[in-house]
Amino acid sequence: MQLEKIIRLIQPLDEIAMRSAQVRQDMLTKPPGSLGRLEELSIQLAGITTNPFPSMELKTVIVMAADHGVTREGVSAYPSEVTPQMVLNFLHGGAAINVLARQANARVVVVDMGVASEIEDASGELVRRKIGPGTANLAQGPTMTREQAIESIQSGIEICETEIARGVGILATGDMGIGNTTPSAAIACSLMGQAPENVVGRGTGVDDAGLKRKIAVITCALDVNKPNANDALDVLAKVGGFEIGGLVGVILAAAANRKPVVIDGFISTAAAMIAVSLAPAARGYMIAAHVSQERGHKLMLEWLGLKPLLDLNLRLGEGTGAALAFHLIEASARILREMATFREAGVSDKE
Amino acid sequence: MQLEKIIRLIQPLDEIAMRSAQVRQDMLTKPPGSLGRLEELSIQLAGITTNPFPSMELKTVIVMAADHGVTREGVSAYPSEVTPQMVLNFLHGGAAINVLARQANARVVVVDMGVASEIEDASGELVRRKIGPGTANLAQGPTMTREQAIESIQSGIEICETEIARGVGILATGDMGIGNTTPSAAIACSLMGQAPENVVGRGTGVDDAGLKRKIAVITCALDVNKPNANDALDVLAKVGGFEIGGLVGVILAAAANRKPVVIDGFISTAAAMIAVSLAPAARGYMIAAHVSQERGHKLMLEWLGLKPLLDLNLRLGEGTGAALAFHLIEASARILREMATFREAGVSDKE
Repeated sequence: MQLEKIIRLIQPLDEIAMRSAQVRQDMLTKPPGSLGRLEELSIQLAGITTNPFPSMELKTVIVMAADHGVTREGVSAYPSEVTPQMVLNFLHGGAAINVLARQANARVVVVDMGVASEIEDASGELVRRKIGPGTANLAQGPTMTREQAIESIQSGIEICETEIARGVGILATGDMGIGNTTPSAAIACSLMGQAPENVVGRGTGVDDAGLKRKIAVITCALDVNKPNANDALDVLAKVGGFEIGGLVGVILAAAANRKPVVIDGFISTAAAMIAVSLAPAARGYMIAAHVSQERGHKLMLEWLGLKPLLDLNLRLGEGTGAALAFHLIEASARILREMATFREAGVSDKE
Repeated sequence: MQLEKIIRLIQPLDEIAMRSAQVRQDMLTKPPGSLGRLEELSIQLAGITTNPFPSMELKTVIVMAADHGVTREGVSAYPSEVTPQMVLNFLHGGAAINVLARQANARVVVVDMGVASEIEDASGELVRRKIGPGTANLAQGPTMTREQAIESIQSGIEICETEIARGVGILATGDMGIGNTTPSAAIACSLMGQAPENVVGRGTGVDDAGLKRKIAVITCALDVNKPNANDALDVLAKVGGFEIGGLVGVILAAAANRKPVVIDGFISTAAAMIAVSLAPAARGYMIAAHVSQERGHKLMLEWLGLKPLLDLNLRLGEGTGAALAFHLIEASARILREMATFREAGVSDKE
């Protein structure tokens, strides 16, 4: 479906289903409110799905991979060749996201949105949507054209809708791309109007000199490109990444199709910021999995108005935090569906 | 096994297994440390089990139930009759802990440690270890005799060892007992030397007048009973509860048998404080599931030196937070066992 149409389709959460879920929560055999965030989550799920008894059997993590021209500036602790190597690791089931998705009984869909090299995939499972062989270097000019930015979002929409057509009830975002904390930080700085010092972190683990370089590169990128914070497509095109654009599409399509979408860490949250800038109502469909170790992530979640479920000092990406959050989200839905009411269980209510 | 013998059996964590697990973590295809708390947890599990590849197929939540004479002081929002009603709800599978344990593929063992009434259990699954028909009112004198305190711990040890004999690899503590945040707060005040105002919370949801009553009751209980903070059995006997004593036994037996034990919320943490006072080395075997909404819980976890995994505003007890934490603990063990190394996956390491 076209981007403009997807945006128009995104509706507010269903108040009636939310009220039904709240009434049900207060009838269950526990002091009202005593399951805290799980109760809030269950009500959000009801509002998203228009179902006061939400369930989510099928789960998918969509991991978008791409390369970044900015790695030439020495902003990452790992070489760019790691991007395709990790894509193969995903396809062979050996990465952290594979382990955590297996545990959560979730499918992993791996997408080449713009890895610099050609990936030979014996499994045939790689989804190929290469917009280009990595982005251009944002320190010297725009990372991509506006058309490419739209194309990357469009690809994300189509991949998400393919999953939904398979019956998937909940989606999560994941990323792989050496160097991608740099465009993500640039997006966040631009949309929040924050100084790079407050947002830029160590990514995969650069040292103090690397961190200084990263801050200088982003300062320069914002100066050279002057992304327009009132035009999220301009921000994505000038300082973004192909996998980030893909994740924007995943988020928008999930919202348009009334499916919850679990936002992973720093890169996914930058994509969520673009998505909310394009379609403010998409926010209600987002569940923030965790607050990461990466500087600025907390500010970004606050800007989005999202409360993270977990705080485990993660900074891996790939969708790992989102896969962990699946358990809590499923728990909240099960509570609503499976717990006995005071009446059913013959338990006396509050005095 | 006898209490003194169990205490002598509790050993420090295995440094060699922990070092092996740390070395392995740094070989896995992710930046070192990027899985944060999950990495720390996996190393703790290795140290607990002496296995650098820990696994935990079988899981059990032990839910200990008892009544409390102090409910006569109006310290709870619910009547005491709810304790046996909820025990039946547990046995019928309709409570929150049943739902969350099912999701985590964990067994729930329900124990009558001292419910005031006789429970008719058609299922035959209730474990009957009634020390007495509820404790005495701590506002007027000791809740139990020192012999009863030891007997309650002894029962917990036996129940835990029965589970371990069935092959259980990880245990969690849970509680049910209308009024039991009051003895738990009294234990915490006594052991930490804290004023009741800093520890006492609303439990199942008392109003402002109820909270004031609770604080006054605990102030009075500490004054009347003068529990000796240097003698944890004295604290348990004077201001404790039968289910709290049972949980102390579960924790000590888990530690003595080198099994991780997941500490749930406020009541379980009070039991953990008694356990650590009796056997300081037991601390290494504990995993704090969450920090609850109940005032004082954070202080108690700090006193124990435990970092909670979750912060979801829970205040239900029953072991619900612990059942949620099972997913994260299992994730940490799976990461260590299932992820590919840089060499196996042919991924380039840090530059």
